[in-house]
Amino acid sequence: MQIAIMLYDRFTALDAVGPFEMLSRMPGAQTFFVAASAGPVHNDQDNLILHAERSFADVTAADIVLVPGGPGSRDAMKDPVLLDWLRAVDATSTWTTSVCTGSLVLAGAGLLEGRRATSHWLALDALRDLGVEPTGERVVFDGKYVTAAGVSSGIDMALHLLGRIAGDRVAQSVQLLTEYDPQPPYDAGSPEKAPTEIVAHWRGLGRTVVEAG
Amino acid sequence: MQIAIMLYDRFTALDAVGPFEMLSRMPGAQTFFVAASAGPVHNDQDNLILHAERSFADVTAADIVLVPGGPGSRDAMKDPVLLDWLRAVDATSTWTTSVCTGSLVLAGAGLLEGRRATSHWLALDALRDLGVEPTGERVVFDGKYVTAAGVSSGIDMALHLLGRIAGDRVAQSVQLLTEYDPQPPYDAGSPEKAPTEIVAHWRGLGRTVVEAG
Repeated sequence: MQIAIMLYDRFTALDAVGPFEMLSRMPGAQTFFVAASAGPVHNDQDNLILHAERSFADVTAADIVLVPGGPGSRDAMKDPVLLDWLRAVDATSTWTTSVCTGSLVLAGAGLLEGRRATSHWLALDALRDLGVEPTGERVVFDGKYVTAAGVSSGIDMALHLLGRIAGDRVAQSVQLLTEYDPQPPYDAGSPEKAPTEIVAHWRGLGRTVVEAG
Repeated sequence: MQIAIMLYDRFTALDAVGPFEMLSRMPGAQTFFVAASAGPVHNDQDNLILHAERSFADVTAADIVLVPGGPGSRDAMKDPVLLDWLRAVDATSTWTTSVCTGSLVLAGAGLLEGRRATSHWLALDALRDLGVEPTGERVVFDGKYVTAAGVSSGIDMALHLLGRIAGDRVAQSVQLLTEYDPQPPYDAGSPEKAPTEIVAHWRGLGRTVVEAG
């Protein structure tokens, strides 16, 4: 089971590392980071560097491919080299997945046309503009395409995938070993739940916020 | 507000990156990774490399210091150079914090003696052996020492800290922008909630599991 997590300049770190931590614990999984070139890739705030172990040229296939989001997705979704690689790997993948604005990159590659998918709550309109049917759900399965909402939702997506691929017991073991028993001190994690003035503030800033991470 | 996240060989990636993603969004925060030497640090499965921007020698103080867990904590808690650095930074820190078995490292440095703290559920006995009062809580504040339970709990700890430091509105904004509205497909994230046979299995493997990540 080969799991390829794509990196690109100005990705959001938790989008990639959340599902990495869960998926890579699947028995038999070989999980690696892949980017245009092997080597260091900088995150959206330029204060974290993750290494891509492999380059696009090194990877011709993967069972799971995952595209994180982040402000860099705006460039990634127009990068012909990146999109060609994504389409090539998608041709034989079992699951093609994204977190946050990673779904805009999948859409940019033409992989989500007419499908149901999700994204960061501030990017759902942009997803619709790309011919995708956006939903407000946290994790969306449409065939082999699995998309997650903003940043932290990749953890939930990974547990869903583990259950589908390896069974409930493996997924529950991973949840237990990572002690994923969320107890946030606030209930402000979605636009439906957060204080209305905070939602309005960020909606007002709109696309700028998604681009800023 | 200087936030230093320590790395050491065989750390668990999400322990560090979960709170990184939340804390670094605090207005005015400067968040960086620090290790014995600046440069690449390998995670517990040797399939992820994070860069430490600074070496211990580069950092003499921080407002928040965070120690992640991982199988490497067993060596880290006996590493005199690492422990000396931690004690020196702790002397002037506002908050000294840990995720997962990072609390064993804090205890190894003598910082938690007689205090209430938490750790990965499989490491609570080891914490007691170090003169600490272990609790089963997900996030524990005892004075300026803040410890979180296993792996994913660092995200919750970071939101608590954001609230204390920057106020509820900032913490809620960060929760909304990272869309932290957890919806795991199972309710198996703690030994009290997971199926008993899974808990028994991992308890049987005991310390091996914590060392294996």
